[in-house]
Amino acid sequence: MYKVKVYVTLRESVLDPQGKAVMSSLHKMGQSEVEDVRIGKYLELTLQKGNYDLDEKIVNMCSKLLSNPVIEDYRYEVEEVVAQ
Amino acid sequence: MYKVKVYVTLRESVLDPQGKAVMSSLHKMGQSEVEDVRIGKYLELTLQKGNYDLDEKIVNMCSKLLSNPVIEDYRYEVEEVVAQ
Repeated sequence: MYKVKVYVTLRESVLDPQGKAVMSSLHKMGQSEVEDVRIGKYLELTLQKGNYDLDEKIVNMCSKLLSNPVIEDYRYEVEEVVAQ
Repeated sequence: MYKVKVYVTLRESVLDPQGKAVMSSLHKMGQSEVEDVRIGKYLELTLQKGNYDLDEKIVNMCSKLLSNPVIEDYRYEVEEVVAQ
């Protein structure tokens, strides 16, 4: 099995109102040192091994479903899991 | 400045209907090798340096606002950023 960790983040140039709201709440809690908050998604996929190109498959899934390429970037890490 | 990356994930024992929906969509796209999807949050915080305990501050923010300790776990990484 493979465990794939995907990080989806808004592009730098895109405003992040959710992050701004969280920052505002942190300031109200007294955390005045916080200068910026950006919020993204973190996905863990478990994939069966098989006769396929793993990178190609991940790029396909990320660009077609898991992220919006117009406003988001993604990166991923792959771990091989030995069946227990 | 510090750049803090926070990963918030649902605890193993908690059902993830959003993940199940994404998995179902991936299967419909023909990605039958996907066995499980879990979805979490990824946050990037930028903090000013100061006279405070960074770990204590992050734990405080994560446990009180950024995650729900009843159903979620979190982990974090800290990078020190040199002003440009």
